[in-house]
Amino acid sequence: MAADFASWSLGQRGRVESALAAGVSSDVPAGLGDAMRYAALGGGKRLRALLVLAAAEAVHGHADAALRAACAVELIHAYSLVHDDLPCMDNDVLRRGKPTVHVQFGEAQALLAGDALQALAFECLLPDGDAVPAAMQAALARRLARASGAQGMAGGQAIDLASVGKPLTEPQLRHMHELKTGALLQASVDMGAACALDPLPAPAGAALHDFGAAVGLAFQVVDDILDVTADSAALGKTAGKDALADKPTYVSLLGLAPARALAQRLLAQALAALDASGLADTARLRALAEQLVNRTH
Amino acid sequence: MAADFASWSLGQRGRVESALAAGVSSDVPAGLGDAMRYAALGGGKRLRALLVLAAAEAVHGHADAALRAACAVELIHAYSLVHDDLPCMDNDVLRRGKPTVHVQFGEAQALLAGDALQALAFECLLPDGDAVPAAMQAALARRLARASGAQGMAGGQAIDLASVGKPLTEPQLRHMHELKTGALLQASVDMGAACALDPLPAPAGAALHDFGAAVGLAFQVVDDILDVTADSAALGKTAGKDALADKPTYVSLLGLAPARALAQRLLAQALAALDASGLADTARLRALAEQLVNRTH
Repeated sequence: MAADFASWSLGQRGRVESALAAGVSSDVPAGLGDAMRYAALGGGKRLRALLVLAAAEAVHGHADAALRAACAVELIHAYSLVHDDLPCMDNDVLRRGKPTVHVQFGEAQALLAGDALQALAFECLLPDGDAVPAAMQAALARRLARASGAQGMAGGQAIDLASVGKPLTEPQLRHMHELKTGALLQASVDMGAACALDPLPAPAGAALHDFGAAVGLAFQVVDDILDVTADSAALGKTAGKDALADKPTYVSLLGLAPARALAQRLLAQALAALDASGLADTARLRALAEQLVNRTH
Repeated sequence: MAADFASWSLGQRGRVESALAAGVSSDVPAGLGDAMRYAALGGGKRLRALLVLAAAEAVHGHADAALRAACAVELIHAYSLVHDDLPCMDNDVLRRGKPTVHVQFGEAQALLAGDALQALAFECLLPDGDAVPAAMQAALARRLARASGAQGMAGGQAIDLASVGKPLTEPQLRHMHELKTGALLQASVDMGAACALDPLPAPAGAALHDFGAAVGLAFQVVDDILDVTADSAALGKTAGKDALADKPTYVSLLGLAPARALAQRLLAQALAALDASGLADTARLRALAEQLVNRTH
């Protein structure tokens, strides 16, 4: 099973990398394409894409729509990293072991590359013709827009900004993460489910939604743990930066051992949701959740 | 006719302002909603929105879809101004007679507000339910994504960045403006046309597209003229900044009188396209084009 998942995961990541390499064109004015490709290609765990593809597999979804949705969530994720790394935000110089986009291409180009990647994510979901049904295109783009905006990722980043140096309660910290990283992870699962060719039974949709919520929060708890336990080389980014920036984290709030216990509880919740979904083919989603919580970088 | 247009224009701007005031919620985390509202509400000529609404009127289009499209293009325009004003871009402190968003709210919040406004533009086009047909939602969002991204507005801004202090030929300058400002103006007309309830005859669609192209370029030529002939108070932004920044413009390339003649030629082209459209109700589009070219601020 583990070997099977590793092979599936490798194959799917290859498909996503190829689709992104074809979709993020370098034939774009004034070096903008180079900055966009630098930001979007050849890096990252592609966790969000894998969540889309695994959820689509669980519902026997539309294959082309699922690959497009997988690329779209990765494009949004890539844009958010480019903007998050800018000097006026986290001012980070290292990402995935390479100089960040603004270090490599300048701040203005990084700003524009992020903006253009966001637009490209929507383009990717809205192809010409009827290869993907219009209603599915609209449903996917709707979910992505909500997850990316003020009530999702961008809103979470605003809370994050406003929280530096402030004590947060656990519900406040949870709310920040539900928006900042949770919304897009959740949307990844929901978008995979929205690739279903026939309407999904409501309980199955709700169970996948619960799975996405638990996995989304678990991801952030583990991120906070790794920020203090892993080194920069393993992470491919600057370790310990949350503590340096005096940002509240699950580790600073709960302590290391309770944070680890929370991650395991969230994993158990996620797996219970899959069991309750009534769907047969959830093995990939299960394996992804386990890998995500037990990862070391 | 002129009075009728003025009254129509005032009424439509009121509808757009109300829809934006309702759609850009202040109930958003950590002050982000305030920055978004500051950027998006109560200012501007709403030219793009009026182009959408006038084009939709010419094709007897879906009223709710047209208002949504009008708001969406204004949200994209608002986000682009916020990002364009940032210190790493034009570093401008005055916009519509008020401090720019980053001056008022800080750079990080301005960055996020722009990002969230882009996402909101797509949300606006993709409502739940079937009040707007899914195929129309997808068609509108598709056009907006293309006009906003690397092959549209963001690409044009990248060329603009790369062109400071460089001599451009007229075709190069034209290409920059076709992307930077033309693509969204063009999309405004095309999106209005895409609100047609029945498929538009191909020649009518093509004629409206030509109209949008001519108007989009004329707008920028006039902008370049006003940058040297109007003062900051009339413009509500810093006048003369293109010359200060050593940016190529139609005036620097052609001279003032030839630039004015070009604007009039483009207006004539736009009006000829309307005549060729075979559509009966193009009076608003005609009046908009005339107003746009003959404006003094």
